[in-house]
Amino acid sequence: MNKTKIFILLLLSLALITCSVQEDKTNQHNFGIVIHGGAGSMEKANYTAKQITVYEKKLNEAIETGYSILDKGGSSIEAVEQTIVVLENSPLFNAGKGAVFTSNGLNELDAAIMDGSNLNAGTVAGITTVKNPIKLARAVMENSKHVMMIGDGAEKFAKKQNIEIVEPNYFYTEERWKILQRIKENETNKDESYLNKYSDYKFGTVGCVALDKNGNLAAGTSTGGMTNKKYGRVGDVPIIGAGTYANNYTCALSATGHGEFFIRNVVTHDISALMEYKNLSLEEATKEVVMNKLVKQKGAGGVIGIDKAGNITMTFNTNGMFRGFKTNDGNSTVKIFKD
Amino acid sequence: MNKTKIFILLLLSLALITCSVQEDKTNQHNFGIVIHGGAGSMEKANYTAKQITVYEKKLNEAIETGYSILDKGGSSIEAVEQTIVVLENSPLFNAGKGAVFTSNGLNELDAAIMDGSNLNAGTVAGITTVKNPIKLARAVMENSKHVMMIGDGAEKFAKKQNIEIVEPNYFYTEERWKILQRIKENETNKDESYLNKYSDYKFGTVGCVALDKNGNLAAGTSTGGMTNKKYGRVGDVPIIGAGTYANNYTCALSATGHGEFFIRNVVTHDISALMEYKNLSLEEATKEVVMNKLVKQKGAGGVIGIDKAGNITMTFNTNGMFRGFKTNDGNSTVKIFKD
Repeated sequence: MNKTKIFILLLLSLALITCSVQEDKTNQHNFGIVIHGGAGSMEKANYTAKQITVYEKKLNEAIETGYSILDKGGSSIEAVEQTIVVLENSPLFNAGKGAVFTSNGLNELDAAIMDGSNLNAGTVAGITTVKNPIKLARAVMENSKHVMMIGDGAEKFAKKQNIEIVEPNYFYTEERWKILQRIKENETNKDESYLNKYSDYKFGTVGCVALDKNGNLAAGTSTGGMTNKKYGRVGDVPIIGAGTYANNYTCALSATGHGEFFIRNVVTHDISALMEYKNLSLEEATKEVVMNKLVKQKGAGGVIGIDKAGNITMTFNTNGMFRGFKTNDGNSTVKIFKD
Repeated sequence: MNKTKIFILLLLSLALITCSVQEDKTNQHNFGIVIHGGAGSMEKANYTAKQITVYEKKLNEAIETGYSILDKGGSSIEAVEQTIVVLENSPLFNAGKGAVFTSNGLNELDAAIMDGSNLNAGTVAGITTVKNPIKLARAVMENSKHVMMIGDGAEKFAKKQNIEIVEPNYFYTEERWKILQRIKENETNKDESYLNKYSDYKFGTVGCVALDKNGNLAAGTSTGGMTNKKYGRVGDVPIIGAGTYANNYTCALSATGHGEFFIRNVVTHDISALMEYKNLSLEEATKEVVMNKLVKQKGAGGVIGIDKAGNITMTFNTNGMFRGFKTNDGNSTVKIFKD
């Protein structure tokens, strides 16, 4: 072998090493998590410093739960589920333990989860005895051929899946009960929306979106619905493409707000479609839908999102949204009110 | 006034007349109606000539019902509702009277309607005693602040709205009952999908889309779900953006097929988004979603649609789809099998 051949071989080896290093780099995905605990017309003046601290602490706990899973190489689905469990187990938010009461004095819970890597999804609506609806949504996604289950049928499936069942009084919280009584007392037209009557109204859904180290996106949302709701009303949360959507090709999204507007506008799929078909960024697409389309229709609420590159959004057209995020570049925040 | 001036004035008058005639033309909207009675793997060899005639007669009756409303200047919403009532009242299709049986031997019905002029929508799921679910969906849209109602709550609302309630045995048909028994006998894994087991399986949803003389689009869909379904499963029909969608800006769409795939792919909103954001025609957008995206995922089914100009589509990736249309240009057809 002459010197020229050796030189060529050396060059080829160097090229191969460079290629494999570059491949490693593209395999190193950013990762991160974004959460919300509901949007609404909350004013800073109505909260004590202590209350704010309590909310911020719980939001931080939820974020750290999910981030820690992602940091250890866990899946975005696992991070989304476990983060939402923290929020569902807290009485602070309108989901799980803190669910608001229906007109009949019951708690009817809805939840959804979606895996952006394969578009698989699981959703449940109108359930009354499952401690963590997000766990049931994941079981529907992973252990059934179906996407959506409702009411008694969904509860039967929960039992079969050994998902924790609680007595209905588990969901009793004095604060939510008082809110129902206050709304009922003020009810003039029994079918009228009460949204404009209460200046401190909160859409208390919780949600989480995550991007894991493998580049997989996931989204989840869980809610106790609207106080004083009637007739088995279901909002946008368990509607794939409305309150919850994830697609590795674009982004993962979770919404909170006046659900009817989010269903009619197919809000989360519309954001994804604006990214896919019009090449808008996550921030541009979310602003177009939440701050333009929804505002024109007076549809109040917000959306959190994370895209395949790890960019995040927390966009809302209300006065506030319980929210926070943490990404692997060291950025993190927890906020409640407008900046 | 010299001859040149008179000539110019004459030219201007002629231009004005031409403009106003053109304006009149753009105000004269096309109108039309498209229906489906479900897609599936039906083979012509399995149907007698008499059976085919019975199906074609009922499909024609439904089309004429809706077309006649549109021809008299009625709204697309009214045409969609009344057309679907004809199909719901027939035992031939899996909706209303002809609904298939759940695993428990019950009939759980879902329906949705959407008004493309204002994005208002009404949907119901898991109802068991309402004769015409499409009427209840319209009542939810027009007489409540909500979009979606499920189960007992939805039935209570139906009673309040004086919508016709029937005894559960109204939905008993011997043919559907036999199909349930046959599937149950052949059930090996109780949770396994039976879709691939029966070569003559039909997704027997019914649907209708219409464009009226005022240029307003509407879509509606109604179904008895899947034979032997369990756990309160809900398919794509009552999910706005999945089985049903209408938007005056683009088109009106109704789907039939393996609902889970239609939910995960937010099929009808995706078609609308491809038209709005990528300027695809109705036919191009529907083909991209039904014949490309869904086929890649083995998601069986079809979609009917009409756009704001009156163009129509009846696209399916199965062997057949009960379908038909009639437009004001004199075109009409009723078909069952592939061309």
